Amino acid sequence: MPSVFTKIIAREIPAHVVYEDDLVIAFLDISQATKGHTLVVSKSEVENVYGLSDELAGHLFRVAARLARAIQKAFSPAGLNVLNNNGAVAGQTVFHFHLHLLPRYEDDDVTLAFVNHMDDTGQEDYKERANLIKAALS
Amino acid sequence: MPSVFTKIIAREIPAHVVYEDDLVIAFLDISQATKGHTLVVSKSEVENVYGLSDELAGHLFRVAARLARAIQKAFSPAGLNVLNNNGAVAGQTVFHFHLHLLPRYEDDDVTLAFVNHMDDTGQEDYKERANLIKAALS
Repeated sequence: MPSVFTKIIAREIPAHVVYEDDLVIAFLDISQATKGHTLVVSKSEVENVYGLSDELAGHLFRVAARLARAIQKAFSPAGLNVLNNNGAVAGQTVFHFHLHLLPRYEDDDVTLAFVNHMDDTGQEDYKERANLIKAALS
Repeated sequence: MPSVFTKIIAREIPAHVVYEDDLVIAFLDISQATKGHTLVVSKSEVENVYGLSDELAGHLFRVAARLARAIQKAFSPAGLNVLNNNGAVAGQTVFHFHLHLLPRYEDDDVTLAFVNHMDDTGQEDYKERANLIKAALS
């Protein structure tokens, strides 16, 4: 089954495309969570960040940074989030890699909230976690 | 004033570093919003996504994708968010470019919530917004 983004790339579903090249496409998110909300999508059907090649990862974020500047120029938002969700628990709804460019405005209705767990994370926890990541990288 | 991240890079402040090269450094976020929460930081003091060169943007996300795979291997989270905040309104607290790698687990206490504004966005709004972005890109 082609994803909804693959259908947009194939022009089987309409979208407001703002940028396109051989590897990526960018178009307005239909939800317009805020004014100018844009998606940067890999043309190949990679499901998530884990599957990105070095080349594709690099190109996606180069394009995202250029588009962030364009969005900043176009709408003068007070801020901007770049967000990528992997897995349903992380908010992913389309299982085809995409970056959200989410312009932010005073009093918008976006919520991005973390809880600080420094007080319940021990020095041994930090060391163990860092060592696990380093071991998995090599 | 050097940022807290510049002090970490200079080893003036301790951190649990998991990766480092000429352009970027990655270490555990002291807040550990979830287990394995990691930051990928530009070594140069770029304030936000708008200031990234093509080279630096590309390298930051290549490293982020590699680290996402390592975190997935290390902790087997149910999902993972990659998040970059630009501007205080977007949740930026350290004004030195960084990407959050936020492993996600069932019933964690992270909230990332958008509201769908499709019903109050007209066809003319979509067209105008896409045209503004395209004009700003060129």
